[in-house]
Amino acid sequence: MNGCIRSEDKHSTDKYCETIMKASSVRLLHTLKAENSFKFADISVRLAGPERLQSKPEVKSLQFGKHFTDHMLKVEYDQRAGGWQRPIICPMEYLSLHPAAKVLHYAVELFEGMKAYRGFDDKIRIFRPELNMSRMNLSAARSGLPVFDPEELIQCMCRLISIDQEWVPHSHAASLYIRPTLIGTEATLGVGAPESALLYVILCPVGPYFGSSGVEKPVSLLADPSFIRAWPGGVGDRKMGSNYAPTIKVQETASMKGFQQVLWLYGEDRQITEAGTMNMFIVFKNHNGERELVTAPLNGLILPGITRLSILQLAKEWNEFKVSERVITMGELITLSKEERLLEVFGSGTACVVTPVSSIHYQGDEIKIPTTQTDNPIYKKILHTLTDIQYGAVAHPWARPIDF
Amino acid sequence: MNGCIRSEDKHSTDKYCETIMKASSVRLLHTLKAENSFKFADISVRLAGPERLQSKPEVKSLQFGKHFTDHMLKVEYDQRAGGWQRPIICPMEYLSLHPAAKVLHYAVELFEGMKAYRGFDDKIRIFRPELNMSRMNLSAARSGLPVFDPEELIQCMCRLISIDQEWVPHSHAASLYIRPTLIGTEATLGVGAPESALLYVILCPVGPYFGSSGVEKPVSLLADPSFIRAWPGGVGDRKMGSNYAPTIKVQETASMKGFQQVLWLYGEDRQITEAGTMNMFIVFKNHNGERELVTAPLNGLILPGITRLSILQLAKEWNEFKVSERVITMGELITLSKEERLLEVFGSGTACVVTPVSSIHYQGDEIKIPTTQTDNPIYKKILHTLTDIQYGAVAHPWARPIDF
Repeated sequence: MNGCIRSEDKHSTDKYCETIMKASSVRLLHTLKAENSFKFADISVRLAGPERLQSKPEVKSLQFGKHFTDHMLKVEYDQRAGGWQRPIICPMEYLSLHPAAKVLHYAVELFEGMKAYRGFDDKIRIFRPELNMSRMNLSAARSGLPVFDPEELIQCMCRLISIDQEWVPHSHAASLYIRPTLIGTEATLGVGAPESALLYVILCPVGPYFGSSGVEKPVSLLADPSFIRAWPGGVGDRKMGSNYAPTIKVQETASMKGFQQVLWLYGEDRQITEAGTMNMFIVFKNHNGERELVTAPLNGLILPGITRLSILQLAKEWNEFKVSERVITMGELITLSKEERLLEVFGSGTACVVTPVSSIHYQGDEIKIPTTQTDNPIYKKILHTLTDIQYGAVAHPWARPIDF
Repeated sequence: MNGCIRSEDKHSTDKYCETIMKASSVRLLHTLKAENSFKFADISVRLAGPERLQSKPEVKSLQFGKHFTDHMLKVEYDQRAGGWQRPIICPMEYLSLHPAAKVLHYAVELFEGMKAYRGFDDKIRIFRPELNMSRMNLSAARSGLPVFDPEELIQCMCRLISIDQEWVPHSHAASLYIRPTLIGTEATLGVGAPESALLYVILCPVGPYFGSSGVEKPVSLLADPSFIRAWPGGVGDRKMGSNYAPTIKVQETASMKGFQQVLWLYGEDRQITEAGTMNMFIVFKNHNGERELVTAPLNGLILPGITRLSILQLAKEWNEFKVSERVITMGELITLSKEERLLEVFGSGTACVVTPVSSIHYQGDEIKIPTTQTDNPIYKKILHTLTDIQYGAVAHPWARPIDF
């Protein structure tokens, strides 16, 4: 039977879960016990016939999220039928949804982003999937959608990946993006938690997120305080679809002005929160002359990124520079820049991994950032360490090999 | 040819549009010119066979948004095919969506809520549809979705209603709810404006929104400042799906505590913004001894309700009491209550029409509101005036008869 080797202990997952729950400014009754989860053992598989199998795109022509593999995973939930149904792997197919399905009207939807990597040893690994699953359950609880046993979904996904394993690119600049999605399907127009839902997982081979130029090409950011991504008492710390639609037009405006991403600020003091769909990191020389790595704290405004957490954990382990989770403002950034103490700015995320930032445009001024010109930049060490773990160049408990 | 009589001049629609655009705290390049709109003249109709026609539910058993009529309207948009395609009326059917459709991941979706009323003269009328269409286009522009010519969609909807006319309840306590919806269908996982979209309209006969008890039964509200519906720099003034998902769990928590709706507050001073999915109105005796009707201003945090606007316009026309659009806070409400100057609190919306509020629970205290015990309450005069217009008891330019 295909499956995954458990490589991370339950304790650290629970701790992450606890941390991101505590960090939330919104306290709700989270009923995260999934006593009636679907089970991997119940999975059924219907393979696509040979005539339906697609040819795989070349790695160099891969664009983010445009090519999909031959199969998908589906798990239906229906309260009237006792909750979660059996997981099904089937040929990739269109979904049939009632036009009144709550996902189409009230954005009752959430997703996760993960990747499978083909290692130097040709083994396929996934990165800390239990953290994505914990976060997915937190998003579900916040959305009125059903929760599940994380390990059961991981096993189902590993089975799906093993079936579509030839879609995992034979390249260390590419990977297989995994998109678990959970939507409310109940066909009634009252605003409320749905009685039926669909969890599904689709896969797509992906190259670098920001086009063919590669992840190391730095990006420019537009920081416009008139647009706010998340706010206290909202859901900015949950991976719900509703956090994304409002950003699209803003991103388009930034692109039209020639900037690649939006830097999201918050509050009168212009706190730096996130950029596009990435967490943000800033490296500077502090008053003690030492390098300091700062990222915004999980105060409810920040998506608790798995890459973000991994960076913090690695950096603390290395103990080579100071590491802080605290509010950092545009004012502070401008001062650092003027005093030539600003060394690096970079974003992190599953899709982009680590992306250096070359400039931030703010209220008519351009703050230039020497990220890619800095000696021994931290972003590069992080990027190499993470990719070494993900592609199995080093053995590490964060990379879980898929067992065929 | 079936269609609608134009009953409201373009000037007042443009003015509304301008008002709600100006009121927005978010300024974007709104390209609201729909030079390539679909056209009513191109509509095609495929009727359901007699075996597919459903029996109509009894008026007394109607629940909001649970029963759908036999037909729907669909208009596809595809940039590669030149934009908007021909409108189609077809039997009510499931939608076929790619699992990567942007609506399912990033909440690229918006909707409107309207009603058709069967009048005392058996004519069917719709209420100020041009205002819903203007708002729908504003939501579309904010979402990266395509805009259209409002009058063309109104004509298409009127045709749909005329086909399903027997579904418009023969009752003056019920109506046919109209749900125009616009979703992004492009099947790529990048966060961005979709190249393809689907506009569709479904219809459902509805009774009173808050159950069979009727609209006049007052509701209780829970005001919990730890949950924020909308914020400056966000999209709280647009009817996008993303505004609703985050409210579901909060509403569930309120229900579990025994309250019917959530009263949404904003800011340190606890401004009263909306309740559930309704705009809020407060009537009190001011220091001059006159009655004053207050509602929150369109400052970006408030959905610009058509019922809200109609109430303000009626009240100003009556000139019987003072009418204000201004910020009103919980502190002010508590003072008014203590001084026995608080007369009425009510919500307004297409679904609920006008709904009196009997109490607000706030930080452990209960503010009782004598809304339904007040002499000659304003909410009742508004309710009766609006329903008289909607059901054609009086001739009024706001009610547009559907021409068969």
